[in-house]
Amino acid sequence: MKKKSCGRLICAAPEFCADLLYAGGFNAPDPIVWFQTSEFQAIVVSILEYERACVQAKKNVRVLPLEEFFTREDKFKNDELLIQRISEKYGITEWLVPGDFPVSTADTLRKNGIGIIPAGNFFPKRECKNTSEIRKIARAMSATEESMMLAREILKQSVIGKNMVLYCGKKVLTSEFLRMEIEGFLKARGFTASRTITAHGSQCSQPHNVGSGPILAGETVVVDIFPRDDETGYWGDMTRTFVKGEPLPVVKRAYEAVLAASQAAEKMVCAGVIAAEVHNKAKTIMAQAGFETGKNKDGIPCGFIHGLGHGVGLEIHEAPRVSPANPGPLKKGQVISNEPGLYHPSWGGIRLEDVLVVTETGSRNFYTMSKDMIV
Amino acid sequence: MKKKSCGRLICAAPEFCADLLYAGGFNAPDPIVWFQTSEFQAIVVSILEYERACVQAKKNVRVLPLEEFFTREDKFKNDELLIQRISEKYGITEWLVPGDFPVSTADTLRKNGIGIIPAGNFFPKRECKNTSEIRKIARAMSATEESMMLAREILKQSVIGKNMVLYCGKKVLTSEFLRMEIEGFLKARGFTASRTITAHGSQCSQPHNVGSGPILAGETVVVDIFPRDDETGYWGDMTRTFVKGEPLPVVKRAYEAVLAASQAAEKMVCAGVIAAEVHNKAKTIMAQAGFETGKNKDGIPCGFIHGLGHGVGLEIHEAPRVSPANPGPLKKGQVISNEPGLYHPSWGGIRLEDVLVVTETGSRNFYTMSKDMIV
Repeated sequence: MKKKSCGRLICAAPEFCADLLYAGGFNAPDPIVWFQTSEFQAIVVSILEYERACVQAKKNVRVLPLEEFFTREDKFKNDELLIQRISEKYGITEWLVPGDFPVSTADTLRKNGIGIIPAGNFFPKRECKNTSEIRKIARAMSATEESMMLAREILKQSVIGKNMVLYCGKKVLTSEFLRMEIEGFLKARGFTASRTITAHGSQCSQPHNVGSGPILAGETVVVDIFPRDDETGYWGDMTRTFVKGEPLPVVKRAYEAVLAASQAAEKMVCAGVIAAEVHNKAKTIMAQAGFETGKNKDGIPCGFIHGLGHGVGLEIHEAPRVSPANPGPLKKGQVISNEPGLYHPSWGGIRLEDVLVVTETGSRNFYTMSKDMIV
Repeated sequence: MKKKSCGRLICAAPEFCADLLYAGGFNAPDPIVWFQTSEFQAIVVSILEYERACVQAKKNVRVLPLEEFFTREDKFKNDELLIQRISEKYGITEWLVPGDFPVSTADTLRKNGIGIIPAGNFFPKRECKNTSEIRKIARAMSATEESMMLAREILKQSVIGKNMVLYCGKKVLTSEFLRMEIEGFLKARGFTASRTITAHGSQCSQPHNVGSGPILAGETVVVDIFPRDDETGYWGDMTRTFVKGEPLPVVKRAYEAVLAASQAAEKMVCAGVIAAEVHNKAKTIMAQAGFETGKNKDGIPCGFIHGLGHGVGLEIHEAPRVSPANPGPLKKGQVISNEPGLYHPSWGGIRLEDVLVVTETGSRNFYTMSKDMIV
């Protein structure tokens, strides 16, 4: 019987695979292979990417040209054949792969006697960021915060016209306009944002509604900005809720409840604290202020209808979840969003989102911008 | 023995899965499930996305809330359990899935007696675009062309300073500046571009080098712009090569060869013509002009070192390939790039890229902008 020899392998486009970007340090929109044997790590890239990969790849990662594994006689130079050749060359009989490894590639390799074992969590340590990662994340958060200040400024400078419609100069201030201003500002600084939420009024009752149409005075405007740094691949994430003019009394009360929940959650975050308990704390505070979570008579979910937070890094939503689904403790170096919100079809929605890095004694907030609602 | 009943299924985030966006018409950054039985098609989305999905989804696609498949007792509401429940509810014993379906999900389902059959090409008809798709693609191409004209204008307006460095007003004209101008212009119109290539001089010898640093007069500047329409998910793609001032004689000759190849290839494209032959035609023309393809004495690939083209649609690179690897005929409605290029470490690179829609009598070019090199 052949001796078993296990390696680790990823086959994906780094741009869309955080594990691969994390492992290799090399970003590309087309698929590459990363693998690790007991002796070394390497990425295999096409000759078109070779020089760039040599410059960008992590110091401990070898860069191998794709050609090294193929011959002139190979008709189909596909991923399956490449992995087969890598396995033969380095004597690997079994690969640990991320859970989202493609099933067709796995089936072919298994048919050829190569073991493919999907891992539940391929790089558990990706959850806890080191100093260099936190620096990169801080860069993304800082650009995000600047673009949020721009959004606030646009609302502040707007004037109230006929039928309460807001104007920016002579133009009607719409969700679309506000989104383009934010995304254009970020793009000019090397950050890519899409589907930025600039919802207003009743649209805000759906947390993922990006918003459309003219914004009115007195309405809430939920601005949720989450750009990716084109250079590093790390994400920023931030939400504020603004009102130009006078909000409804219920909106004022909901805002106060969300703000109190945000402050209490931030105060509670610390390495060792149970993630689900932070979520529950925020939920309880909002319930005590009169905003229970549950379905209304039409079956529509109201109140605090999502988790309090999620990890942020090379993915916009990554581990850990800060919700009832995570009974585990927070850990030092985790970067998590803290985003309590309240939603109701009758008056809209409020959300305030900061991002915190978990420390041994508490947390550090990436943002210093005020959470004031009225501009 | 249980009767076999086969369905089709995708489980992915539509934003990153063209097949899913194509099938459901609903765009979201988080994973959803689409499935098709012999009777109907549906997408299953979380309650947070339900209303938006009902508006956006294709007319023939039902929208089902995730909750319908889970009970309060379910501890882990994951994809595996969801697909299990869908299979039970609609009596499906075997699913045809795209090749990149996650292996861990496949393994779990197979263990539970549900067949998972990866398909080589899940939606072959995605290759041939209908009128509505071509309209959406034209929108993306038009924005791309406008941004290319902006890039040309910036180079045209630039002035030659000390040591041949180009200036845009008082600022040194760099690759980074040019990229940001292009990407900002597109973002302000609702198109997302990243890694736009604005390479200059010797950087152009690597087709994927995005470019950096000050641009000099007399150097080639390869500008390759490929934005995605935030609204529709369709891509644009276009390349031009510019020189401010006087290019080297070899660059002029290479440019003429690439231009001739582009024109000959475009003339040849027609439904029924073999894709590989179009590539070979372009290659031959450039070789006859003195630009052979092969490795130089240092082992670096020179000449026409990539395929002539690729399909463009909901993916920036999709079927069909227009290269020696595709011995099949072009088909009516395919949208393909036509991008001959020449590369050499000693003088840099030239690439000219148009996008064509294949018709029964020839092709239509999405672009009318001139290919003139000298600005």
